[in-house]
Parts: sequence; C-alpha cells; structure tokens
Amino acid sequence: MDVSNTNVQNDDIEPERPAHPAVFPSGEAGKSDHHPAGHYVDFPVSVVLPAGGTGERTGLQTPKQFCSFLGRPLISYTIQAFERVSWIQSIVVVVAKENMDLMMDITQRFQHKRVRVVSGGSTRHRSICNGVLALGEETPAAVRPKVVIIHDAVRPFVEEDFLHKIAMAAKEQGAAGAIRPLVSTVIATTSEGYLDHSLERTKYRASEMPQGFTYDVIHQAYQRCTESDFDFGTECLHLALQYCGTNAKLIEGPPTLWKVTYKRDLAAAESIIKETLSQSACLITGGLLPAVTLADALQKAAGALDMELDVIPDLMGDNARYLLKEWNFIQVSVTGSCLSEVEALLGALEAANRAPLHPLVVIWVHLSSSDELSSSGNVAEPAAIMDLASTAKLRSILLYGIQLHPSQDTECWERSVLRVAEIASALIRERSPALVGQLLQA
Amino acid sequence: MDVSNTNVQNDDIEPERPAHPAVFPSGEAGKSDHHPAGHYVDFPVSVVLPAGGTGERTGLQTPKQFCSFLGRPLISYTIQAFERVSWIQSIVVVVAKENMDLMMDITQRFQHKRVRVVSGGSTRHRSICNGVLALGEETPAAVRPKVVIIHDAVRPFVEEDFLHKIAMAAKEQGAAGAIRPLVSTVIATTSEGYLDHSLERTKYRASEMPQGFTYDVIHQAYQRCTESDFDFGTECLHLALQYCGTNAKLIEGPPTLWKVTYKRDLAAAESIIKETLSQSACLITGGLLPAVTLADALQKAAGALDMELDVIPDLMGDNARYLLKEWNFIQVSVTGSCLSEVEALLGALEAANRAPLHPLVVIWVHLSSSDELSSSGNVAEPAAIMDLASTAKLRSILLYGIQLHPSQDTECWERSVLRVAEIASALIRERSPALVGQLLQA
Repeated sequence: MDVSNTNVQNDDIEPERPAHPAVFPSGEAGKSDHHPAGHYVDFPVSVVLPAGGTGERTGLQTPKQFCSFLGRPLISYTIQAFERVSWIQSIVVVVAKENMDLMMDITQRFQHKRVRVVSGGSTRHRSICNGVLALGEETPAAVRPKVVIIHDAVRPFVEEDFLHKIAMAAKEQGAAGAIRPLVSTVIATTSEGYLDHSLERTKYRASEMPQGFTYDVIHQAYQRCTESDFDFGTECLHLALQYCGTNAKLIEGPPTLWKVTYKRDLAAAESIIKETLSQSACLITGGLLPAVTLADALQKAAGALDMELDVIPDLMGDNARYLLKEWNFIQVSVTGSCLSEVEALLGALEAANRAPLHPLVVIWVHLSSSDELSSSGNVAEPAAIMDLASTAKLRSILLYGIQLHPSQDTECWERSVLRVAEIASALIRERSPALVGQLLQA
Repeated sequence: MDVSNTNVQNDDIEPERPAHPAVFPSGEAGKSDHHPAGHYVDFPVSVVLPAGGTGERTGLQTPKQFCSFLGRPLISYTIQAFERVSWIQSIVVVVAKENMDLMMDITQRFQHKRVRVVSGGSTRHRSICNGVLALGEETPAAVRPKVVIIHDAVRPFVEEDFLHKIAMAAKEQGAAGAIRPLVSTVIATTSEGYLDHSLERTKYRASEMPQGFTYDVIHQAYQRCTESDFDFGTECLHLALQYCGTNAKLIEGPPTLWKVTYKRDLAAAESIIKETLSQSACLITGGLLPAVTLADALQKAAGALDMELDVIPDLMGDNARYLLKEWNFIQVSVTGSCLSEVEALLGALEAANRAPLHPLVVIWVHLSSSDELSSSGNVAEPAAIMDLASTAKLRSILLYGIQLHPSQDTECWERSVLRVAEIASALIRERSPALVGQLLQA
C-alpha cells in the first residue's frame, strides 16, 4: 500500500496533534508517535460517528456512549481518538434530538475542536445518512471529504494505524471495512428453535467498525436505497454492494476495535484507561540527597511494579515539559513543613493550563525525621493536605500523601521504601476520589 | 417444562449447598436462593469442563482459566458456580498434562469437593471426549450421569436457573445448547478478501455454552466421529446432529454466559466479582449510643451509595450467622484504646473457620474524642493497626481504619459521616491490598 508523506493543509485542520495525547490500549501507541508522517494521507477524510443508541444492552439508564469513566463520557474518548489523527478534518457526531444539548456540552467541556453535532434519524442508517448529508451540504466543495469513515461512538480504542489502512483502502476500492474472526460458532436455527446447521467458521467473519467509503459511494448508496433498508438494514457495506456495485475490501482489525456493548464492557474500558494512565510517573526530588536516595530505591521498586518512573530535581527549564504530559507526579519532601513544595507543583500544573481531560494523580511523599513525630506538625499536616486536596480535586487533580519515617536499619528502610512504591502504585492505578487528602503511612 | 421436586440422594452428592455461596452477577441470585427446590432434577447430571486452552487471545503468559482475581483463579469461580448447584453430582475438569499439578493444587486450596481432574487431548474435542469417557469408565453404573453438561472453564457466571433449563431440555431432546443474539453482522468473504455477502442477522445465532447431552448421545457421537472431527470440529451440537441424528434444542441464554476471551475480559470479570462482594456490609456498634447514632447516619449514606448495611450490636447469638456469609464488616469503636474490639472480630472470623475464598474487608471506625488527639494514643494506634492488618492479610482479611472526630457543629458532623461512608465504600469496592493497615481520616 502506498503511503504518502504529504499533509493536506486545510484551514480547518490543526497541523499539530492535540497537546493531550489520546489514551492508548497498547504499546503500539508509541510506534505511531514516532513516525506520524508515515500515516499522512493526501486527500480529505472526515468521520461520521452515529451515537443515537439507547444503551438497552448495558442495562443502564444512561445510553452507554454517555457513560463516564474518570469523569469523562465514553464518546469523548472516541472523539479524542480521531482528533489526535492530524489528517482527519472533521467529525460529525449524530445524536438523538433529546441528546443534542448534552452532546454540545460535552464538546465544549472537553474542548473538542473538529466536532459538529447533528440530529439523528429514527434508525441507525437514517442517522448515518444525516451525518453524510451534513458533510456534503455544509462543507465548501473544495474540502468536501474524499473519504468518509464511519465508526461507532462506543469503540473508543481505535488507532491511527488502522484508520489509515481503512482510509487508503476506501479510496482505492470505494469501500472498506474492519473484520474480526468469529468468537463463537454461528448457527442457523429452525423456526421451532432447533439446530438446523452450523456455519463453517473459517469462511465467515464478524463485520466490525470502522468502515470507510468514498463520499460518492456512500452518498449514492443512501440516495438509492429503499425505506426498508433505512429501517431494517444493518450493514453500510451491504448497501454499497447492492446500490453501487462496490465490493468492499475487508481488513482484519486488531482486538482493540471492540465495542462497548454490555455493562461489563464499561468496567473493561475503565480498566484499560486506568492502566494506560498509570504507566508513567515523574518523581521530583527537590535535589536534596535523602530524596535522591529514596528516588533511586523507588525507581527500582516501580520497575518491578511495571511503572515508568522518571526522576527529576525540579520542573525548571526543559523539565517543564512534564507538566504538559499525561503523567502522574510524586513530590518528595524532606524538610519539616514542606507542603509548600506540593503547593508549588499544583500551582505549576494550573499555570500550564492543563485541561482536565483525565484526573491526574499527585502524591506527596514526606520523608519526616523521627523527632517531628511528637511535634505538633504531625497533627497540623493531615488537615492541611486535606484542604489542599479538596481544592485540587475541583481541578481534576487527585492529591494523596505518604509519610515515610527514615530508619538506620537497612532492612527496615528497604521495607518502607517498597511500601511507598506499593502504596503509590495502588493510588495511581485506583485513582480513588474518596481517598484524596489522606496521609498514608509507609 | 416439568420441574421435579425430588432430589436424588446419591452418596457423593452433598445435600446442602456450600456454606459460602457463589458470586452472582445479578439480583437474580436471590431468587434461586429462595426456591432451590424448584431447580432439583430427578436424574443424575455431571459436568465436563474443558480447560486445556493456552490463552493466546488474552495476550497473557498464564492461560486465562488460571488467571487470578482477588487471589483466586478464574476456573475456581467457574467450579464454584457448579458446586453450589446441589443436583450436580460431579465435575470433571480436563486440563493439559503440564497443568495437572496446578489444577490439583487449586482443587485442594479452594476446597472443591466434587471435582475430578483428568488429562486433556491435543484438541478441544479430544479433551471433551476424555472427560466424557472418564465419567463413563470410573463411575459405578448406578450413578452414571443421565445428562452431561459441557461448559467452558472461562464462563464463570453461569447460573443455576439456566443450567436447569439445559439439563431438562437435554434429557428430553437428547441435546440442548445455549444461544445468544449475534453482536456483529456476520459476513462471507471472497478468497481475495472482499465482501461476498452478509448474513441476515435474524436467522442466525451465536452458539454459546453450556450445552447438555444425554450421556448416550454424547458418548455415541464421540465413538462415531472421524479423526478430522476430533482435530478441526468446533461444535458438539454438530456432532450430535451428524452422528446421532439429534437436533439440539436451542435456548436463549442470559448475557451472564459471556466468555472471558481477551485481556480486557479479565478486568470485566474482576469488576463484576468486586461489585458483588461489595453489596453488603455488617456494622457492629458495640451497643454504645454514639456508635448507634453514627450507624444510623452511615446506613442512610450507604443506601445512597448502593450498599446494603445491616446494623447489629454484636456477633452474639443469632448474629453469629454473619460470620459465615460473604459480608464485609465495619466495627465502630468509641472508647479510647479500642483496637481490642477489632481484634475480637478478627478472632471470631478465624474461629468461624471461614475458608479464604475471597478477601474479606474489615473496617475499624474509631470515633475518637478530641482530647485524644494530642495524647500519645494517636501515634501508637497507626503502628498497632498496621501490625494487626499484616497478620490478618495472611488469612485473606483486608483490615483498614477510619478515624472520625466528633463535632458539635451539625453540618461538620454530617460531612464527616458522609466521608466515612464514602471512604468505607471505596475501601470495600477497591479491596486494595496495598492500603491495608492505614488509619484514614474522615
């Protein structure tokens, strides 16, 4: 497949990917970060995201695309997956009339820039058709998309690599769609509810999303199809075949294309997002020797717990870049009354104007000398960190404290350090809002 | 469908369900608890659990049936789902030769009583066949199963209701299988990787597990089938049709039949188990007035957080039954040095000889008067509760502490009570081993 290095420069395309990279489910993410040029396409591509579902199968009141993890609705994660792809020019989200306001609010709150919200029809096909028509009517002809990608709002983990394959194949063949191997055997039933026959698994595939079409093919398919197709059809690929004679190219997609269908899938999605957000933390030592020693030990322990831990003395100069990443922070303090350091960190995060896309974890590790234990400092700090945490929580920062008592006994010290690593790792992974402001003992 | 109330009384059937009820994914659970007699069957039923999979699709080193949540492997949850059904007489688990020792160890560690472990074949059908033959060869003819249920080791949430339907239909029709609606459209591909046609979704179903067969049908099917069936076949239902002329009855199953297939499904399963274990807690007041007032307030707050909270003065008499349930405990203490109460609770749990099937959460809520704040008690307690928690953890009990300071200001007091409820709820839900022994501030 030919990969063009030319980036189309339309006014409404942001040339840079957003400052807040999307959530990736796998190590594959790094790859596309290093070679973004390999994925550029030289024709305009837009996206239609039908999001009119009622969420019956999740067993929840809220339609699943609007269910939130870590304070952010599922659909916003899916939109973000497209917004970080520089060659996608616009994303049309189609929602039920009663959810227009909600969707507008989500767009604004999570700062989605390339999104237009349009009102859906009574069935999935009518909604997709509305989205396609919106792309055709409102966009100036010069930037009318060559290719339209159709995706589900409830498949948030789609990756740039695969979108690129679909876009290229759609341009070449007129239509392209993701497939996956069948997980279960498919059987035909008799009208009385008995087994008629089972299908040979190797000849069939599950049709998934995303799918891509040239604008002309998908537009024509919807112009020509019947009311019955609009009401009962399930497959855009089928319409392209029937009404445009276009045999779609089928491309095997990765497991990350999975669709949030049941309530349990919401838990799975949250777990993937939490795992991704927990992969990296930045430890600030303040440059003081006891903190540096602790940092070295923590770095070893964190490695064993599968977390990347960068150690820096402060956030000056080049290190300020950490403020813009999706990293967590561990601030080590060795002086007596030293919440000031964590206050400075919170201030720096606010100054960096980090949009509250995900709750960020900040852990204050206080290396207190044993004389301080009996002083009043021990009583005042819990209240102070609780106050600080309450304020930070409003800005989507989860602040926790860990108190570590130095010991002359090597074994005892090593055990404490390991416990700091375990506690910090658990706090970062679990992101429990109920536990913010607690000063835990290592 | 006829439901018999007669319970077959064979020597190797335990008439009572195990003291530790299984994990249920839904409120349906209560129903079968109240009317167990409705599900009795008057013929012997045994189970074959093929568990020879290598877990490729999870992307994990450990085959998924042996992956653990909350310290317990997936297959043990699945076995438990069958062991709590009184009319199932034995469960044959078929594992790869290299996992025989591991499986024996799991059987012993989690006290599975009706399980036999046999060695598997090179394919799924050969493994199931080994299991069926083991049932036929080793059981005295008198208790040879009339019906054999075949299930997947990686579908832990199967419920008694549905097993009953499958067993009854299998006895009547010779074969029966669970079906579910198709989640994705199924398409046929050309050999060049293009869309050939899509199947009409309403005519097809996904074939799932469990499936049931009379012993004679499944035994005959495996006697007659070819080497090619053994090597490449996927469907027992298909073999019954082809070699015994038995058209299986297909029964639509609940979504809880889902199969742990990918890594994300492990997270979903863990989340379901955690949610189930977090539904109920028992609050022990010690009968003292301040504790009773707190308990009332907590009960209201817990209701809002969707947790059932029973309040009892102590564990005497009839209340001792709580020690045998899958409940969590909240011990409220109002006196000065009162870890003794939580020590007594831990002792009672140990005396009740609760098998460590799931980690249990015990939360000590200490209602301390404000004078105690400046006393040395405040320093000694954190160390004492940490020691206690370390010991308890070895017995699968997760102990946490919450300190609550009484306030004359009503608003302030209500806020603190709400925070106790939030923290307790988070601790019970998250069951974080890293945070045991912490004394949190409300």
